[in-house]
Amino acid sequence: MAQVSETTNGIPQIFASIITIGDELLIGQVVDTNSAWMAQELNKAGIWLRRRVAVGDNREEIIQALNEESRYASIILITGGLGPTADDITKPVLCEYFNGKLVIDEGALANVESIFARLNRPMIERNRKQAEVPDTCTVIPNKRGTAPGMWFERDGKVFVSMPGVPHEMKGMMTNYVIPKLQGHFTFPFIDHRTLLTAGIGESFIAEKIIEWESVLPSNLKLAYLPNYGMVRLRITGSDTDSGRLQAVLDAQFGQLKLLVKEWMITDEDMPIPQVVGKLLKEKNATLSTAESCTGGYIAHLITSVAGSSEYFKGSVISYANEVKEQVLGVSHEALVSKGAVSEETVRQMVQGAMSVLKTDYAVATSGIMGPDGGSEEKPVGTVWIAAASSGQTIAECFHFRYDRSRNIEMAAIYALNMVRKLIASA
Amino acid sequence: MAQVSETTNGIPQIFASIITIGDELLIGQVVDTNSAWMAQELNKAGIWLRRRVAVGDNREEIIQALNEESRYASIILITGGLGPTADDITKPVLCEYFNGKLVIDEGALANVESIFARLNRPMIERNRKQAEVPDTCTVIPNKRGTAPGMWFERDGKVFVSMPGVPHEMKGMMTNYVIPKLQGHFTFPFIDHRTLLTAGIGESFIAEKIIEWESVLPSNLKLAYLPNYGMVRLRITGSDTDSGRLQAVLDAQFGQLKLLVKEWMITDEDMPIPQVVGKLLKEKNATLSTAESCTGGYIAHLITSVAGSSEYFKGSVISYANEVKEQVLGVSHEALVSKGAVSEETVRQMVQGAMSVLKTDYAVATSGIMGPDGGSEEKPVGTVWIAAASSGQTIAECFHFRYDRSRNIEMAAIYALNMVRKLIASA
Repeated sequence: MAQVSETTNGIPQIFASIITIGDELLIGQVVDTNSAWMAQELNKAGIWLRRRVAVGDNREEIIQALNEESRYASIILITGGLGPTADDITKPVLCEYFNGKLVIDEGALANVESIFARLNRPMIERNRKQAEVPDTCTVIPNKRGTAPGMWFERDGKVFVSMPGVPHEMKGMMTNYVIPKLQGHFTFPFIDHRTLLTAGIGESFIAEKIIEWESVLPSNLKLAYLPNYGMVRLRITGSDTDSGRLQAVLDAQFGQLKLLVKEWMITDEDMPIPQVVGKLLKEKNATLSTAESCTGGYIAHLITSVAGSSEYFKGSVISYANEVKEQVLGVSHEALVSKGAVSEETVRQMVQGAMSVLKTDYAVATSGIMGPDGGSEEKPVGTVWIAAASSGQTIAECFHFRYDRSRNIEMAAIYALNMVRKLIASA
Repeated sequence: MAQVSETTNGIPQIFASIITIGDELLIGQVVDTNSAWMAQELNKAGIWLRRRVAVGDNREEIIQALNEESRYASIILITGGLGPTADDITKPVLCEYFNGKLVIDEGALANVESIFARLNRPMIERNRKQAEVPDTCTVIPNKRGTAPGMWFERDGKVFVSMPGVPHEMKGMMTNYVIPKLQGHFTFPFIDHRTLLTAGIGESFIAEKIIEWESVLPSNLKLAYLPNYGMVRLRITGSDTDSGRLQAVLDAQFGQLKLLVKEWMITDEDMPIPQVVGKLLKEKNATLSTAESCTGGYIAHLITSVAGSSEYFKGSVISYANEVKEQVLGVSHEALVSKGAVSEETVRQMVQGAMSVLKTDYAVATSGIMGPDGGSEEKPVGTVWIAAASSGQTIAECFHFRYDRSRNIEMAAIYALNMVRKLIASA
């Protein structure tokens, strides 16, 4: 792997580090989705995230993390621990760390007051205290909540504290932190090219592209990202000259695409529901789903894409057999003689979706997700998936070996890929 | 906040640290769900997670992290970077760090061979290399994939390296790592009590319970976990005596429940779809959904709960108006005169779900999730939700102010809470 160097044509690489504060992260009550989002935004701005650290609501550990991360990075982004309750200690700790004293910020106070007025809730002292900030920081306005953000500088390094509430943090990052960082430092350009493959393992791809990979320019870097039985390949490059970076990325990406074209699903960085949506828009066609074991998850993935109402008409989630029969028109005979998890049933389900929801394409699932409900003949993880167009219906049986939630995810992604193939081949 | 002390009745607290390796975490292509799961498992076993660190596929940074985390913790759990491709360098770095040399492990090789035989895929040298391990480690069998885990010991500390693939890591943790750690160290008991409130803000709860919180025993700790407009309260305790710990937790939890009983939704640590499911089972009743703007997400949340087929019959996802009309029986007049996002429409949708899917309860949503589709009269974030029982239909309009995915999540949780109230009051 070609490691991106620490300088790009003489511009020193600026590193960032994220410190996430909160006991909830250390007992696993919350999955940290903030860091991934922040990493993406930093990257787009040409800032390389070097480390991410999570620590508890504990003074010593927060100070330790601040000391340590400022050795590794010039930009330290801190989230969490700014709530109004006693377990939230980030603000007093930062105040101490940056030798300040807490003072009411009038702008932040007006913001808290206007939020309480809008919600028509009485304000108590604890809420008023949310508007306190160390006098050694620059206040970052929070348009989406009561806790203000804080910007500190020391020894050429920038420390930014933001709330852990995702939409509040995102508003601050987009509207304030990223623009202000861009004014403060000089960044090289960082960009990516990503493609998605299906039907080939990571190690086989590596063999196919070994010669190409071995002579990749030193400012480019390749990553293999396997997930849901597919492999995403990502080239990342950095350069001080944006045009030159785009040119070298395009050239290398063009070669890579040729090498893996047999397995390539898309050459854009988009998840499979978006790939399906793009195809449907191109063909001016509509889609529906009939879901048993996936329980609406396929519909959810499809409708997570903005603008999906252009091509997605709806679904029948037929968890109970009587819904399969009475709404989708699956024959009683198929359900009794072949069972709900069978090729016959899933083919009738997909036909039912096409006719009840009146779409050009449909996809249907029926399976056993676990932990219970399996049998010797049909063990947990057995899933029948069918996809249909007006002229063709295909069905296939899969055997997933994971836990319930992963089985649901896998079945949904495989179902989307099956209908994708059908649409792409039309 | 009462900080849990570093010893519990003379037993020193054993701390763990998680190191996650992979550039994909630092550019934000992947959300780290492993760490939350691992934290939960460690906690259950009486092990306190002190820090979580993510670093890239970079030798120096991995070594730095190993040095650092072993200063903070006795147990260092490492995930990621064990794949067969060139960017995965965790194994050679660990081999160097623990002064070993790479040798083929016969058990691991047999495992790789059997997986390739089962998949009927040819094996190449790169796959064979997956069975190599440093000769200074104890091999951890991987029953779910090709990369073996590795257990190292140095200066009384334990280092465990596992694959980043979630179900492979989970298998190793459950079947090998946790039991072996329990044999290696002596842990105090750690346990939690959790309740969920709705309709009251974090700072108001804090005021209600301030006297109780201020005299909480020092081995107990309270956390406020706000999410989706609700607040979860969690008491965590540690003790060398399990019986004594349970008794003090029960006593304190009993007091807390009394203080917040007006707003309490559940006194168990369960998400709201499970609360709804439990109520439905108690009342031997069934549920369906009619979803427009939530696009199947409510159905997905309900069916994420194992055993939900006992009470959930299905859904009609009516993304297109014609599906609202033709499948759910919403009147053309309501759609034309009031619009899809209106009280009239959502009431007819919920009635449609009750009659088409033949359930005792139903919940329906119709709204504008964004980023486009809003108007002055009905801005993005406007959502009508209705819930119905055989005797009663309630409807309410909400205005969410987040991005598309958060608006969908909020609407789904509010919808579940609305139907929960209806079921609970029956």
